[in-house]
Amino acid sequence: MNSTSAALAEQFVPVTYVQQGLDALRSREKQVTTLLAQRRLPDKGWDDASVELLLQTLSAMDSNNFLGSAGAGEREARVFSPLVARRHFHLAHGIGRSGDVAAVQPKAAGSSLMVQVANALAKDVLHLAGMRAVQAALVLPVATGMSLMLVLLQLKVSKPNARYVVWPRIDQKSCFKSILAAGLTPLILANTLVKEEDESPSGYLKTDLVGMAALMDQYGSDSILAVMSTTSCFAPRAYDSVKEIAELCQERNIAHVINNAYGVQASKCVHQVELAMRTGRVDAVVQSLDKNFMVPVGGAIVCSASRDIVDRVAKYYPGRASATPTLDFFITILQMGKSGYRRLLEERKQLATYMREKLDALAIEKGERVLHVSNNEISFALTLGSFCSEVMDKQERSRRLTLLGAMLFSRGVSGARVVSCLDHKTIAGHEFPSFGAHYDGFPVAYVTFACALGMRHDEVDLLVTKLRKTIHEWRAKLSKQSPPVKNQVEQSSALENK
Amino acid sequence: MNSTSAALAEQFVPVTYVQQGLDALRSREKQVTTLLAQRRLPDKGWDDASVELLLQTLSAMDSNNFLGSAGAGEREARVFSPLVARRHFHLAHGIGRSGDVAAVQPKAAGSSLMVQVANALAKDVLHLAGMRAVQAALVLPVATGMSLMLVLLQLKVSKPNARYVVWPRIDQKSCFKSILAAGLTPLILANTLVKEEDESPSGYLKTDLVGMAALMDQYGSDSILAVMSTTSCFAPRAYDSVKEIAELCQERNIAHVINNAYGVQASKCVHQVELAMRTGRVDAVVQSLDKNFMVPVGGAIVCSASRDIVDRVAKYYPGRASATPTLDFFITILQMGKSGYRRLLEERKQLATYMREKLDALAIEKGERVLHVSNNEISFALTLGSFCSEVMDKQERSRRLTLLGAMLFSRGVSGARVVSCLDHKTIAGHEFPSFGAHYDGFPVAYVTFACALGMRHDEVDLLVTKLRKTIHEWRAKLSKQSPPVKNQVEQSSALENK
Amino acid sequence: MNSTSAALAEQFVPVTYVQQGLDALRSREKQVTTLLAQRRLPDKGWDDASVELLLQTLSAMDSNNFLGSAGAGEREARVFSPLVARRHFHLAHGIGRSGDVAAVQPKAAGSSLMVQVANALAKDVLHLAGMRAVQAALVLPVATGMSLMLVLLQLKVSKPNARYVVWPRIDQKSCFKSILAAGLTPLILANTLVKEEDESPSGYLKTDLVGMAALMDQYGSDSILAVMSTTSCFAPRAYDSVKEIAELCQERNIAHVINNAYGVQASKCVHQVELAMRTGRVDAVVQSLDKNFMVPVGGAIVCSASRDIVDRVAKYYPGRASATPTLDFFITILQMGKSGYRRLLEERKQLATYMREKLDALAIEKGERVLHVSNNEISFALTLGSFCSEVMDKQERSRRLTLLGAMLFSRGVSGARVVSCLDHKTIAGHEFPSFGAHYDGFPVAYVTFACALGMRHDEVDLLVTKLRKTIHEWRAKLSKQSPPVKNQVEQSSALENK
Amino acid sequence: MNSTSAALAEQFVPVTYVQQGLDALRSREKQVTTLLAQRRLPDKGWDDASVELLLQTLSAMDSNNFLGSAGAGEREARVFSPLVARRHFHLAHGIGRSGDVAAVQPKAAGSSLMVQVANALAKDVLHLAGMRAVQAALVLPVATGMSLMLVLLQLKVSKPNARYVVWPRIDQKSCFKSILAAGLTPLILANTLVKEEDESPSGYLKTDLVGMAALMDQYGSDSILAVMSTTSCFAPRAYDSVKEIAELCQERNIAHVINNAYGVQASKCVHQVELAMRTGRVDAVVQSLDKNFMVPVGGAIVCSASRDIVDRVAKYYPGRASATPTLDFFITILQMGKSGYRRLLEERKQLATYMREKLDALAIEKGERVLHVSNNEISFALTLGSFCSEVMDKQERSRRLTLLGAMLFSRGVSGARVVSCLDHKTIAGHEFPSFGAHYDGFPVAYVTFACALGMRHDEVDLLVTKLRKTIHEWRAKLSKQSPPVKNQVEQSSALENK
Repeated sequence: MNSTSAALAEQFVPVTYVQQGLDALRSREKQVTTLLAQRRLPDKGWDDASVELLLQTLSAMDSNNFLGSAGAGEREARVFSPLVARRHFHLAHGIGRSGDVAAVQPKAAGSSLMVQVANALAKDVLHLAGMRAVQAALVLPVATGMSLMLVLLQLKVSKPNARYVVWPRIDQKSCFKSILAAGLTPLILANTLVKEEDESPSGYLKTDLVGMAALMDQYGSDSILAVMSTTSCFAPRAYDSVKEIAELCQERNIAHVINNAYGVQASKCVHQVELAMRTGRVDAVVQSLDKNFMVPVGGAIVCSASRDIVDRVAKYYPGRASATPTLDFFITILQMGKSGYRRLLEERKQLATYMREKLDALAIEKGERVLHVSNNEISFALTLGSFCSEVMDKQERSRRLTLLGAMLFSRGVSGARVVSCLDHKTIAGHEFPSFGAHYDGFPVAYVTFACALGMRHDEVDLLVTKLRKTIHEWRAKLSKQSPPVKNQVEQSSALENK
Repeated sequence: MNSTSAALAEQFVPVTYVQQGLDALRSREKQVTTLLAQRRLPDKGWDDASVELLLQTLSAMDSNNFLGSAGAGEREARVFSPLVARRHFHLAHGIGRSGDVAAVQPKAAGSSLMVQVANALAKDVLHLAGMRAVQAALVLPVATGMSLMLVLLQLKVSKPNARYVVWPRIDQKSCFKSILAAGLTPLILANTLVKEEDESPSGYLKTDLVGMAALMDQYGSDSILAVMSTTSCFAPRAYDSVKEIAELCQERNIAHVINNAYGVQASKCVHQVELAMRTGRVDAVVQSLDKNFMVPVGGAIVCSASRDIVDRVAKYYPGRASATPTLDFFITILQMGKSGYRRLLEERKQLATYMREKLDALAIEKGERVLHVSNNEISFALTLGSFCSEVMDKQERSRRLTLLGAMLFSRGVSGARVVSCLDHKTIAGHEFPSFGAHYDGFPVAYVTFACALGMRHDEVDLLVTKLRKTIHEWRAKLSKQSPPVKNQVEQSSALENK
Repeated sequence: MNSTSAALAEQFVPVTYVQQGLDALRSREKQVTTLLAQRRLPDKGWDDASVELLLQTLSAMDSNNFLGSAGAGEREARVFSPLVARRHFHLAHGIGRSGDVAAVQPKAAGSSLMVQVANALAKDVLHLAGMRAVQAALVLPVATGMSLMLVLLQLKVSKPNARYVVWPRIDQKSCFKSILAAGLTPLILANTLVKEEDESPSGYLKTDLVGMAALMDQYGSDSILAVMSTTSCFAPRAYDSVKEIAELCQERNIAHVINNAYGVQASKCVHQVELAMRTGRVDAVVQSLDKNFMVPVGGAIVCSASRDIVDRVAKYYPGRASATPTLDFFITILQMGKSGYRRLLEERKQLATYMREKLDALAIEKGERVLHVSNNEISFALTLGSFCSEVMDKQERSRRLTLLGAMLFSRGVSGARVVSCLDHKTIAGHEFPSFGAHYDGFPVAYVTFACALGMRHDEVDLLVTKLRKTIHEWRAKLSKQSPPVKNQVEQSSALENK
Repeated sequence: MNSTSAALAEQFVPVTYVQQGLDALRSREKQVTTLLAQRRLPDKGWDDASVELLLQTLSAMDSNNFLGSAGAGEREARVFSPLVARRHFHLAHGIGRSGDVAAVQPKAAGSSLMVQVANALAKDVLHLAGMRAVQAALVLPVATGMSLMLVLLQLKVSKPNARYVVWPRIDQKSCFKSILAAGLTPLILANTLVKEEDESPSGYLKTDLVGMAALMDQYGSDSILAVMSTTSCFAPRAYDSVKEIAELCQERNIAHVINNAYGVQASKCVHQVELAMRTGRVDAVVQSLDKNFMVPVGGAIVCSASRDIVDRVAKYYPGRASATPTLDFFITILQMGKSGYRRLLEERKQLATYMREKLDALAIEKGERVLHVSNNEISFALTLGSFCSEVMDKQERSRRLTLLGAMLFSRGVSGARVVSCLDHKTIAGHEFPSFGAHYDGFPVAYVTFACALGMRHDEVDLLVTKLRKTIHEWRAKLSKQSPPVKNQVEQSSALENK
């Protein structure tokens, strides 16, 4: 409301009320000023009205929303469906220009401003989470897999003859496929199994640093483009030893890309990445937007201790892109604020401890154990040894474990992964024995559960209750030797949960 | 966006783009300035973004949306459900104060401003439609019936001993009940049937002015509070002769309230009301918001050639009220703009002519006629003489006509009224022979159709197609003497369409 | 999704996933079934998606949203603005018919169903709050004042010659005006001041039951239409002794209407009303929707231990009405659920105790006291004796107190009422000495604060902090004898807060 | 509403009304059935309510919206901000799985179904537009540039040693960068200038087919991965001769990718592509979602006459992706319907003719001409010879033309491109003399205007009015030899419009 309108408003409503209303408006405008001046998360999250007022303002600054302009280009951000226009707050120009996905658009001052601020907030929120070495961050409108691919493609520009990527095994397809999609060849490095002292069929997996060095020697620095290490992953795999890898890479002049998919939410993980960036070579760290910041799937943050690599990735992106991942992140981070994000991180940490305790109790009750994986604060693996022991033939073990997965799925437990250590997978010619276990001969079957950001206390309780009940029913079924797979739903979904 | 923010924005996005964006923002703000300065409909309707930006701005000016304030009252407009808050654009204080429904609220500068402007726009849109004598208009948050009751209650304050309201018969319950609800006694004045020259069983109904004068003489001016006349109504009733009634009222010092329910949309009707206001006594004119301005049911405009009566009605209203009818009107009228409303009026006029032609053609085809009612531009009555002639006994005629109504209803024709001239109704002790026909012995059964604001050309076509088909099927049924009412749906809904 | 669609979906997506999705859909549909079967609040509040899915379903059942129908009536719920249509979830027919505001509409099965269920939920939520004697409840689309007027008008129908309403004084205009608006004459009954034992300038106000009996004797049962008692009110007025009034009314055959404006949120208040309904005569109880259920201003619930009176009020309402207050209530109560509403009630109770403690501490600090009013759990009065003692002349006291009110307003404390006991008001010829204090000669000035439903813990802290600071500044100003009113804002708003 | 609920509803609302409401619901459900059965655009566009009801239904089928489930994975689509959740209709799982962007997700039956149907609709709408040879279509969640890169990367898998892409010059960066980003080397083929008979400084540009064949011979089929041809482009460049290119590619076993960026909207262009697919080799055609279907920037459709290539591109995509581009397309295409899209195509065609006429008239008036480019129905080039003739020095000509661009920009003409034929650009080492003109020595400067889908008649009028005025002012300025660039805004934006 401009000053003329304010003066006119006083002809309708007493000046004192108008003034108080204007003060309130000014305080919302001041929030925006503070945001633009500090380029940091607000201390306290913004309410819906503040966010919407800002988005409406930005949107009015984009040419497709100008009153009385004439669009004579082939791309004027005309939107047919009001439903669609509304869900985008009338921001329709997307982000970037043909030359640079981080570039501002002449036709879209509002969208451009949003993108720039979002990138600044991305950097700030990573600092807040503990990655203080980050000097530049870029919200990419593609998810983790594509982001990794773009980083690799970009690295290749300055080392065109290198064709290998050293990849400590992690049984998750996106990152592996990102190497293939970039036209590169993965060198798969097996993990090291660290057994527990009691010699039980258990243990955890960590990076084989000696093996990595050997691989580097074998292929040579010139032909190896990068190491792609992974932090966040399913237990019993631990975070890769990213600090040590970073040091190896620095010594041998090999690039290092960290797939920090959902690691921002875990303080120990963040700390490892921070150490790696400070003491060794880390070209880029890629983290998922949806998993770390509770937005819909679709974006990632690429960050680095060097502005240069981030700018190069931005400039490498051919053409414009959807503004949605950036906008979702922008809105969310404004609404979380510093205090909100800190609270979420703290709650997750406490809840993970709680989940671990509950799973431990259940494990003892059932004669199993929760594997001890010190460097994995998010994912927990509960062994499934007792009802599918080594004595059974492989096919029967597989049948039994598949059944458990299907039962969990159909009882509303999503995201639990039953790992039989019996599946074999081939991806683009590369063999993965015991797929899912990140290791060829992991000694025991297990099922994993994650305590991810945004999980609620009652959800953990519900999970453990459902789990207890399902294991009970599963064992009862197996004991009776009843036909293991009862109905089509469970049968088919079983395939899915492998 | 304040100037500091604008300057900061230039650190993110080139100054030229920011400037152009700001220009666009300014032009939206200027729309608001023009609105407040002119207090009139914008020439061209506003787009969604302009309306939402204004509403967000107003909403931020209400205390329930202040950042950092403390609400220590019993009514602080706290809203539990985000769904509800959102549908009200966070405007939750309602309208008015305990003393006056048009009063501004200290806690709600934004809502108050909206209400004041809405009332100014109400006056302007009535001028636009042709009621140029209107000096004051008030959007009431209750529909036509309650608004009429409030006007009557208010009139009674200054003439407490008068207990009668002269009411030219109109077979619609709300207005009749508004008299009863006000604790007053209606004096029902029968209409005059004007037969057509050809002596066919047809004709139309107009005000019996001689009878009205006689009634006034009989009861005396002191005991008659008001005449409540009606303009818009179902054919074959014509608009009341409001000009002549206004003159009678002026002569005899009797108040005159016009129920102009959906008359604003019809130019001839508006013209009659304008003449009445200019040449005689019209205390207040009440018009429905939903029917004249295409908003959901719930509000009305009370207007008058005198500011005084409108203010008194406002002050008479006990307590606060919902802002929704006012807000719906405000949004709609901004989005229509002058040109939009004019276009709607024009389209309705042309479409009514078109509908009349199509119905005429159908009537000829079926051996019926569309009644000629010069002073009714909205509603058309198609006779139904041929298949339920006077020869039949009453019960059979009633059965047949009820069946047609039910058939139309179940075939998706809503709002058509089959009037058998055979129903008798008693409301609070008052008898209405031949209810629905506005007249005791109307000579022929008929069915009415309205061409109301917002109807589309293809809807008229669809109506006539469905009508032709239904009449055909109806007659076929009757010819076969098949049991007239086939299923429960048609049976029950038949009762409804009487 | 019908079964054919489900089968077709399995050609796109594996049957197991589709089945699980359909199960989820079914469980949402089952929520609706449970709601319709039980007619009670769900145990747990519904999420947005469930509410919206239900509203979309209901909306599709209204004729204005039928695909391929032809609207031939004068009222077809056509909505011009998509913004408006959307905020009403395309429910545009309003509620009621010309004969009955609670009646179902043939054209609007969905809206009608919503209204019926909302009324059932209104009854249930009152039971939940403790008003178990309630047999029928009606959500009225007008706020408390108008609802009281409608109830009075309706009562008058069966006792047309009674013209008085006994009204224990409560200095709030809406309820007083509702009596006037109904064309009735209030008999104002002064309250009884109960002094505290220590003879300090303090005390609280309660119903003068002896005086009421005397008034009844004086005017006679035949000429008194009703007693309008009030529960929730600002301290130091206590709830009226509604049980005893109910007994008096029963003895003397006088109707009794309880203005329970925001009393549903307070258990002691609810208990009084329950006792009154059980042991004496209570024709109707009216409660505000916004204050008790956290919806925007605009509706009220009329309830009674008898179905009859509620039905009669519904049938008395002339014409249709806005669906908004009912819809807001419907959505909110579904989203609260039983557990949510209980939690809100419990939180308010605890917070009121907390607020009382904080105010007590502040009072001691400042040499004042919080008045002890046992029968008022919502509003607290802090005395203001020390800086505007009786020694000063009246004008100076008034100036000082007005200044405090203005200062609180401009510092973002809304809803605090400074009562000087020096204002005199005349409403429609009735005199109110010491307006605001509910009593002619209350012994001390004070300021009131309410702890209403939905207030938050941090808001109480903020309030007390602001209050402490403001009193400090106020006293500093007064001590310096600086000109008391510094700027225009404070001056004007001062007038407002009287 | 399930049948139990329907039966219960009849206890609240008469059975006839409920039945009619249910019929209406069923007819909306039937729309969905028809959609799933036919996998084609609905004949008539759906209204908002139908779309939202479907989306709500689909959303309820995704696991993140299940009531009472426990999410134990690292990715459970939890959304923090209600604003964000709402804009995605609670669909938060994105699309695809780690192995395939077109794969269904076990956790997201609803989202998966939406994606599958969207891909079917993409195929259907391309058929509707005239590309009847299309056998498979895939909506990609990345824009044209990235889509082209993905197609190239995929093609490279089966021809790993080929490193060249033949690229008929088109001065637009995205497509050029897509080749570089794929790690390939472009072979830039100059266009052929076809002069007009009158020897005026004009002409148009077409594919140099002889040159292309020569280039293929020079580098050899084995080392050339593909030809990337372009259809839609700015005049005076015409569509590439895609049919002839397709034949060349077939003969020589070279892949052929058509960049049909905004060509779907132009019937002649579509016809060329159709011919190419039918008679020669076309591996994939890529078209922009935003430009052809009026959605926000962010997606593209990859289609082919062979299912295989489309599937391979889908499987090539590493990881999940944003559902937004697909969802926007899905909503839009449902709301357009067949008739709506046909009408838009027809309107654009007629409007292009109208724009051409208006520009011709203006050209004659100003002593210029609109270049005749038969194979370009969308973009028009108006010469600018008269005020910046060859006689002037290059710097002055450039200054003058830059000024015009800046003036158009600041007067609200967006998308007009002033091409001076004097700019030289280097992209990744490749030289582009006379950048913007698609040709090294185009004989005359010009400005281009596009008549794109969704442009309105009044917008063309506004454009021509603004253009006439701006040219007039520009010439006036130049004649006066006033300093050409007046203010900062025009200066900076000038750079932009080159």
